[in-house]
Amino acid sequence: MIYLDYASTSPLKQKVLEGLHKCLNEEFANPSSAHKLGKGLAKKLEQLEKDFLKDFDPEAELIFTSGATESNNMIIKGLDFEDNEHILYNRADHPSIVNVVESQKTPRVAFDEKNLLEKINGKSRLLLLTHIHNLSGVITPYLDQVKEIKKKYPRLHVHIDGAQAFGKYSISDIGADSYSFSGHKFGGPKGIGGLFLNSDVDLKPLIEGGGQQKELRSGTINYPFIHALSLAYKQREDAQKVMGLKEMIKSELKEYFQFPFEHMNTSAFILLAQIEKVSSDILLRFLESKNIYISSSSACSSKIKGFNPTYNAMGIEEKYHKNILRISLSSQTNQEEIKQFCIEVKEVFKEIKHLLRK
Amino acid sequence: MIYLDYASTSPLKQKVLEGLHKCLNEEFANPSSAHKLGKGLAKKLEQLEKDFLKDFDPEAELIFTSGATESNNMIIKGLDFEDNEHILYNRADHPSIVNVVESQKTPRVAFDEKNLLEKINGKSRLLLLTHIHNLSGVITPYLDQVKEIKKKYPRLHVHIDGAQAFGKYSISDIGADSYSFSGHKFGGPKGIGGLFLNSDVDLKPLIEGGGQQKELRSGTINYPFIHALSLAYKQREDAQKVMGLKEMIKSELKEYFQFPFEHMNTSAFILLAQIEKVSSDILLRFLESKNIYISSSSACSSKIKGFNPTYNAMGIEEKYHKNILRISLSSQTNQEEIKQFCIEVKEVFKEIKHLLRK
Repeated sequence: MIYLDYASTSPLKQKVLEGLHKCLNEEFANPSSAHKLGKGLAKKLEQLEKDFLKDFDPEAELIFTSGATESNNMIIKGLDFEDNEHILYNRADHPSIVNVVESQKTPRVAFDEKNLLEKINGKSRLLLLTHIHNLSGVITPYLDQVKEIKKKYPRLHVHIDGAQAFGKYSISDIGADSYSFSGHKFGGPKGIGGLFLNSDVDLKPLIEGGGQQKELRSGTINYPFIHALSLAYKQREDAQKVMGLKEMIKSELKEYFQFPFEHMNTSAFILLAQIEKVSSDILLRFLESKNIYISSSSACSSKIKGFNPTYNAMGIEEKYHKNILRISLSSQTNQEEIKQFCIEVKEVFKEIKHLLRK
Repeated sequence: MIYLDYASTSPLKQKVLEGLHKCLNEEFANPSSAHKLGKGLAKKLEQLEKDFLKDFDPEAELIFTSGATESNNMIIKGLDFEDNEHILYNRADHPSIVNVVESQKTPRVAFDEKNLLEKINGKSRLLLLTHIHNLSGVITPYLDQVKEIKKKYPRLHVHIDGAQAFGKYSISDIGADSYSFSGHKFGGPKGIGGLFLNSDVDLKPLIEGGGQQKELRSGTINYPFIHALSLAYKQREDAQKVMGLKEMIKSELKEYFQFPFEHMNTSAFILLAQIEKVSSDILLRFLESKNIYISSSSACSSKIKGFNPTYNAMGIEEKYHKNILRISLSSQTNQEEIKQFCIEVKEVFKEIKHLLRK
C-alpha cells in the first residue's frame, strides 16, 4: 500500500504505538484522583505540558482537547465580543473555521491572502489565520506580521489553526494569542489535540463540568493519549527530507499535472495537483486499484459534488473543481513509494487515454 | 495493587487493549476519506453504530463524542428553549450537569429524589436525570416514570446521564430522548463516549466544522477508539457478580463504616461509606501505603475542601463531608482483592486507633 493522504489522517508512528500500549496498561488512573496514582500522573502531566509550552511560549497555557476542530470552536465561541466587534476570517480556510464563524451571530469580515491589512480596524476582535492550508499547503503570508498586527491592535486576538503545521514546522516566536492542533496529523492518535492559549486571555469554556484543566475544558483527562501525543511530537517530522520527495513528484509528473499553488510558499507535506483532462475521481479509482491512496479533496468536504465553495475561495476556477488531487506526505513516506507512485500515475494515464477530454 | 476507584476511571479490559492495538495499526484511515480505506471504515462504523443502537432504540442516532461530559454539554447547550421554558436538574448530580446548567442563562428549577413530579409543568423543556449517581451509586427512582412523564409533557426532553450505568445496566426501553456515556467507565478508552439521541430532536451542534456525524459533531472520526469502545461494550460488566463483592464489603466492614445510601436501590459497582471517627483523607493515606486505591470523593471534586455542595445536595450532613469514602468496583475486581481490602481496612483501624475521635 502507498498511502499519500497524511493530511487527512496519519497512522501512529511505531514508537507512539508502543508507548501508548504500555501507558494504557500501566498509567490508566485519573490524574484528578486524590490518591497516589492520580497525583503521580498529574505531576507527569504538568511536565508534558511544560515541554510542549517551551516551543510556543513558556508563559502560556496548554489545554488538551479532542483536536483542532474543538480548539477552533473554543476560540470562536468562547471569546467575549463587545458591540460591533467582528471576526476576520478567510473563506478558503478549513470548515472548522469557516462553518463555525458563519454559524455565529458575531459580525464577520472576510479577507483573503492579499487584503488583510485593509480589513483590520479598531473593531477587529478576532483574527483567524491558518498556519498551513489543508488543501493547497500554502503557508500563510501573514505569519511574519502577527507581532506587528498585535502591536497596532492590542485588543485583537490572533488565533492560528495549526492542524497541518504542528509537529512539522516551528511555532516558536509566532506571536499569536492561541494556536490549535491535532495529534493525528503528525503520527499521534486521533481524538487528542490541543489549544495553546496566552494566559491573559479570558475564555468561556466550551465543555464545562468537573472543572479540569483550569476550568477551561472539563472531562476526565486522557493521560495515555496526552503521553502518546508527546511521543509523536518528540519525533518531529522532517520537512527538509519530505520537501525532497515533493520535488520529485513535481518534476516527475509535470506533464500530467499542474501545481497551481507551487509559485507560493508551501508546506513540504502537501501538494495540490490539478488535472487538465480527466476528473480526479476517475484517477483516484484507478490509483486505488493499484493500492495507492490519495484524496480528491479534504476528507471533511469529500461529500461536496460540483461547485466547491472552498476551492472557489482559494481561487480555483469552477471548471477545475472536479479535477483536484491532494497528495500529502509525511516523514514515514520513503523515496521508493514516491518512485512507485509516479510510475503508477504514468501507467494510469496510459490506461485512461481514451477517457481524456480533448 | 488493589484498585477500587473504577467509578473514577478504569483500566482497559485486556481484549480491548489487544483489539485497540491491532486497529490502531491497521485501520487508521479517515472514515470521511473518499478512497477505499476511508469508505471501508465508514461502513464498519455504520455497523458498530447499529449494534449500539439496538440496545437503546434502533430508530435513534448515536453521536460519538469525547465522553459523557461533552455529551451532557451538547444537550444542555444545544436544545432550543422558548421564552420562560426551564431546565429541571438535581443539584446532587455530577458537575457536568450542575455546573453547565448553572452557567447558562436558561431558567432552571431544582428537584430532588422526592419532589420531581411537583416541579414539572408545561414550561419544563429539559429534564436531566442521572441513571446511577456517581458518588452514592443510587439508581434514580424516576427511571420507571420516564415514559409516563414524556406522555404527559411531549415537549419535555428527558436526558439521562448514564456515565456510571452504561455497559453495566440495561438501557433498553428506557424511554429517554437522549442518553450519554463514557468509554473509560467500563473498561474502554478515555476520550471516547457517546450520546444516544432520538432522531426527531433538533439539536444545535456544540463542535462544528467539517460536518461529520450528520452535522452534529465535527472533528475527524476516531475509528480505532470507537472500535475499542464497542469491544468494551461487548464484554458487559457483570452486576450480579459485583453485587456479591459489594455485599461482602458491607458485611465485613459494618463495624467500621456506615453506608448511608444502602437502604435505597443502588448500583453494584459503587459503595459510599461514611466513617464516624476519622477523616477519609487519613484512611486513604494509610490504605495507599498498603497499595490500595480508593477515592474520598469524585475525582472531579477532589480539590474541594470542607463544605461540599454536592454532598450537601445528596443529604449528607456537613459534619461528615470530610468522612466520605467511595469504594467502586468492576467485573475486573475479584474476591481475593475484596478479602484483602477488608483485612487491610481493619488493620488500618488498629493502626490509627490513637487518632480516632472519641
